[in-house]
Amino acid sequence: MVKRLSILGSTGSIGCNALLVVENYTDDLQVVYLTANKNSELLIRQALKFRPEGVVIVDESQAKTVENSLKKETIEVLTGREGLLEVAKRDNVDLVLNGIVGGAGMEPTLNAVKAGNNVALSNKESLVMAGDLITRASRKSGAEIYPVDSEHSAIWQCLRGEDISEVRKLILTGSGGPFRTRRLESFAAITAEEALKHPNWDMGAKITIDSATMMNKGLEVIEAYWLFNIPPEKIEIVIHPQSIIHSMVEFQDGSVKAQLGVPDMKIPIQYALSYPKHKFTKWESLDWNKVGELTFEKVDLMRFPSIQLAYAALERGGSAPAVLNVANETAVYRFLRGEINFTEIPMIVEEVCTKHTWKKHLNLDDLLDLESWTKAFVEAKQITV
Amino acid sequence: MVKRLSILGSTGSIGCNALLVVENYTDDLQVVYLTANKNSELLIRQALKFRPEGVVIVDESQAKTVENSLKKETIEVLTGREGLLEVAKRDNVDLVLNGIVGGAGMEPTLNAVKAGNNVALSNKESLVMAGDLITRASRKSGAEIYPVDSEHSAIWQCLRGEDISEVRKLILTGSGGPFRTRRLESFAAITAEEALKHPNWDMGAKITIDSATMMNKGLEVIEAYWLFNIPPEKIEIVIHPQSIIHSMVEFQDGSVKAQLGVPDMKIPIQYALSYPKHKFTKWESLDWNKVGELTFEKVDLMRFPSIQLAYAALERGGSAPAVLNVANETAVYRFLRGEINFTEIPMIVEEVCTKHTWKKHLNLDDLLDLESWTKAFVEAKQITV
Repeated sequence: MVKRLSILGSTGSIGCNALLVVENYTDDLQVVYLTANKNSELLIRQALKFRPEGVVIVDESQAKTVENSLKKETIEVLTGREGLLEVAKRDNVDLVLNGIVGGAGMEPTLNAVKAGNNVALSNKESLVMAGDLITRASRKSGAEIYPVDSEHSAIWQCLRGEDISEVRKLILTGSGGPFRTRRLESFAAITAEEALKHPNWDMGAKITIDSATMMNKGLEVIEAYWLFNIPPEKIEIVIHPQSIIHSMVEFQDGSVKAQLGVPDMKIPIQYALSYPKHKFTKWESLDWNKVGELTFEKVDLMRFPSIQLAYAALERGGSAPAVLNVANETAVYRFLRGEINFTEIPMIVEEVCTKHTWKKHLNLDDLLDLESWTKAFVEAKQITV
Repeated sequence: MVKRLSILGSTGSIGCNALLVVENYTDDLQVVYLTANKNSELLIRQALKFRPEGVVIVDESQAKTVENSLKKETIEVLTGREGLLEVAKRDNVDLVLNGIVGGAGMEPTLNAVKAGNNVALSNKESLVMAGDLITRASRKSGAEIYPVDSEHSAIWQCLRGEDISEVRKLILTGSGGPFRTRRLESFAAITAEEALKHPNWDMGAKITIDSATMMNKGLEVIEAYWLFNIPPEKIEIVIHPQSIIHSMVEFQDGSVKAQLGVPDMKIPIQYALSYPKHKFTKWESLDWNKVGELTFEKVDLMRFPSIQLAYAALERGGSAPAVLNVANETAVYRFLRGEINFTEIPMIVEEVCTKHTWKKHLNLDDLLDLESWTKAFVEAKQITV
């Protein structure tokens, strides 16, 4: 049976990889919607190639370009954030892949889940910000969430056929990013260009900076908490610079299962799209003669304070993880624009987390208000680089 | 519900570890029979501690000792190989753990399976010699075989919830034993004492020598073929000197699952005894700060010709693996007695495999005849060390 698929964020790194997966399985996967933020040119090319029923261009200034290019086709063109939110909840799809970057992906996930659409979730910020809302909505509608992040895909695969109650801990591996061994005293001088060079993974800018601060691993801890329903104290981080072991599960008998592979997002994307099947691919697979050595280290929390901030937000719960996420995202973009330095990212996040008015339960409006407040706070923050 | 357990070979390495497992789970596991080859003293102590319904001492010269020591107890004492074969097929048990060393374990496995008893199989020689007979008997009776070998337990755990048809290959890891880096020219001078020092695992003498020649890995390939019903060309060996990754499964999408842990046989034994549960234990678990580096190498077939012999026997099928196994076992004991040198073990195995009268289908009598012929051939072989 053909699986009808929406790809939110189709012009980003995850979206493009997902379309490479779809190309191999046109008999099994049919693209129904594609959505892009700004990249109208690529969206148009994707639309002409994959012939979805509709596309969304979020940036209204690009709307005319997309409409004109597709006016002779039978492809519906929706525009703006409303278009995105509308498409996410349409129920003529079997699976929504959410590859949107950052907090902007949260509401589409919530809409999809509310509508009963299964979600292949790459946008970890969805669960970080609205884990409670999304989890409750998915229980209500029966929608399932399939992880796409390589770490969570690894854990999901390791838990297949297993009982979560027999798990001693989840072990998220992290490469440690480009600054694992850099002198700590020089951290303030880190440039965006340096931080954008990830040693193993080729990803978008926001997640690459998050990998450099290791906030990405912190957000993954929060995401794992919601995906696998396991307490924070059972989620550990181990530094594994080679990114071959994507994550692990230790059971209470001391047996550890790990999922490994080349660092290629197509593998977890395809698994989420074709779950529960491991479908044949011709992509490069692990060559044990070339793997060399796999090493493991404790995470250095002095070097990566973001990790502690994330655990603290998770323990505190309520509004804390959402504020953490928005503050981090806004600070990352300020860093990328050269307005703040690298070490100020976690400093700002910590300050906002401390200063915000904590709330235990949040509905969607609360979340959106909190998002605006946090963004404004971080943007207004005067810092002399 | 209490699982009623027979332990065949209770005084050996696997048997003793199994009893350490049972001690932790006396509410779940009840020992019904214990059997030993010669070690009457330990068997008696085990019997008095675990209070089974019966024990078997195979060595008739020890029978009186055991009978006298247990005559005041309500513990049945059986003797000789007949006693062992009888106990294996008794159906007042839920699970038979076969920890017997070498080809002597084959017939007990067959008896257990024929009687419909599930078998936790540590005796890999059972499937190497009689894979066809045992597999057919288990299909007929419905008896299941749970692997105990750390490699096969790893694969079994990785395959949990998975579909074998989606597997690209099974990857058996092997430490490479004590002679992985020793100068090849000095192999003929290897002493039994040197060969008995395994770098990672504490095991019985026969399997330790098999690890040194890597015939153990070859036998594991054959065992994996029968356990997981997968063709030889899909079973690979990778050298992994640290013995932390116990084995792996690569799926056809390039995703690899591995099972890891400290090299402690109690983990796979307990998993087989309590399957499908991972029960809580307090044993040492993997400490990622101490793991250091994990490395991988191609297996050197010049150094370890036994591996090629095993693959060849598996490809040829019929009587070939049984002859391989018996020839190897007999040669190993001659090596341990100082009668042949280390490099002559695979030479003799190869010669016997070539010279024996190959047969496609073997019943039990054929197998026992072949065993006698092979043993006699290897024992009679004149070699000047």
